[in-house]
Amino acid sequence: MAGTIRLRNFIEEKEPRRAVIIGSGYIGLEVADALKHRGLEVTMLERSGNVLEEIEPEIGARVEAVLVQHGVHLIKSAAASSITADAQGRGAVVQYGSGGSLPADLVLLATGVRPRTGLAEAAGIQLGPTGAIAVDERMLTRVNSIYAAGDCAEVRHLVTGRPAYIPLGTTANKQGRVAGENAAGGNARFEGVVGTLVTQVFELEVAKTGLSVQQAKAHGFQPDAVAITSTSRAKYLRGKPILVKLIWDRPTGRLLGCQMAGEEGVAKRIDVAAMALHGRLRVPDMLHLDLSYAPPFAPVWDPILIAANEAMKKFRRS
Amino acid sequence: MAGTIRLRNFIEEKEPRRAVIIGSGYIGLEVADALKHRGLEVTMLERSGNVLEEIEPEIGARVEAVLVQHGVHLIKSAAASSITADAQGRGAVVQYGSGGSLPADLVLLATGVRPRTGLAEAAGIQLGPTGAIAVDERMLTRVNSIYAAGDCAEVRHLVTGRPAYIPLGTTANKQGRVAGENAAGGNARFEGVVGTLVTQVFELEVAKTGLSVQQAKAHGFQPDAVAITSTSRAKYLRGKPILVKLIWDRPTGRLLGCQMAGEEGVAKRIDVAAMALHGRLRVPDMLHLDLSYAPPFAPVWDPILIAANEAMKKFRRS
Repeated sequence: MAGTIRLRNFIEEKEPRRAVIIGSGYIGLEVADALKHRGLEVTMLERSGNVLEEIEPEIGARVEAVLVQHGVHLIKSAAASSITADAQGRGAVVQYGSGGSLPADLVLLATGVRPRTGLAEAAGIQLGPTGAIAVDERMLTRVNSIYAAGDCAEVRHLVTGRPAYIPLGTTANKQGRVAGENAAGGNARFEGVVGTLVTQVFELEVAKTGLSVQQAKAHGFQPDAVAITSTSRAKYLRGKPILVKLIWDRPTGRLLGCQMAGEEGVAKRIDVAAMALHGRLRVPDMLHLDLSYAPPFAPVWDPILIAANEAMKKFRRS
Repeated sequence: MAGTIRLRNFIEEKEPRRAVIIGSGYIGLEVADALKHRGLEVTMLERSGNVLEEIEPEIGARVEAVLVQHGVHLIKSAAASSITADAQGRGAVVQYGSGGSLPADLVLLATGVRPRTGLAEAAGIQLGPTGAIAVDERMLTRVNSIYAAGDCAEVRHLVTGRPAYIPLGTTANKQGRVAGENAAGGNARFEGVVGTLVTQVFELEVAKTGLSVQQAKAHGFQPDAVAITSTSRAKYLRGKPILVKLIWDRPTGRLLGCQMAGEEGVAKRIDVAAMALHGRLRVPDMLHLDLSYAPPFAPVWDPILIAANEAMKKFRRS
């Protein structure tokens, strides 16, 4: 919060013209959106070949398209190597890749989050495989009567069953409440997360829950996937296209993940898939879910049901 | 569809001024909304003491308030007894209750749906306890090789486990697909519904899934309930109030139903509760669901989680 206010004050006082954002995760994207709305020229440098971590290519392509539409200059596969003052000493120069350089009046590092574990380590508290503090379901560390919660702590991923590091405000809130209740003598439990995330990039809503195809493979699943396009609501009420990708485990049919992009109806629709992950539903369980329908809100077959029915065809053949 | 087009043509040709709608279910409410937008004076006659069937009083009060705001005249506990031509033979008079009468240029009967079972009965096909055609999960009637689907057929209610009559387009679509697949030699199954419904009354979105308190009692549950008000998204992004009522079984904690009303974010949010019913979740299972969060789409604690946490306090005490 303090950093954001400092950034806003800097923009209002110094009136920078050219911004370079290093990293294209959801923070980088949301700031790109905000800076464009303030009229800055925005260039994003992304080290990997993709915007947003663990986003499927179909969804990533929609994000890149909306960046182009709004005049954000995205440079992929380009790791920043240095930030130096320019010759006049009035701005900065960001060097990247093999010889690229960008002049900038403002540089934002949005390269990810690392858990701050110094205090815990100094106290002899064990970290988990992700590098964050290992905790159990009661948010207890490996040292009795010391609890950890929030961006410093691991969380169990309910799809893989393994510890993960997914620092998000919602999770921090839940963990904090559970840790607090237990520290005060209670017995609350936080089972874990399914990896739900939503962000808005200009007019595009982007959401995911569960595992990507890559993550699923890395965790020993044999993922299969379909991507479909439907509409957010009845076409005659100006429904907007919505892209849904479903990912499941080929041998068992178990749902592993879902990703969506569209101009409306994405954020809370991803929660249906999140609930399916919480319930460990299989693709065959998802064909006839009793989801709400009325023309202003959904087509008769909700996009998730259309995706599930397409997934079922592929699952049957496999 | 044909009836709706005839109604529209009648309005455009005859320019009626005063409409009386008999019945205040979702069809009656949606037509009241549409007629008001066309500038008609609208009076609704409701036989019972409540608008919308099986809507909780807190939610019903919101619906009535929005009707009043838009100048719809609602008369409750008023059964229509006759519709006759007026003295000039140019309009109609609707008589109701003990001596009430309303002049009308247009009268709409929106008093509910009954299954059309004549053909089935003539063929010796058995009806179920609801009066609609009894079918199994394959949509097979009690007569081998004859299938039924849609508004003529029963459906299994997955919360009660019993047959119900809930004629809705989504269900008809699913049943039709399953019946067709099986009639063509397949082996598809339609497990049933959880009773999800959404409608829009002027700017108010109203949704329910599962059982009302009354229905729960009628089915032998011991329902308990909480109602909370939260916001559809972050307040600083002009989130709008959203009312959530959760209903659960006191002895077991099992979720039985959920109802919502608000100006946005209701339709797809009810699907989270529908998924919880599909998964037979208990209130303690719902405290930490990994639902999507970003300021444009939800508060950090989604209204459903706030309701679940309130429900948990009451469940613990019981």
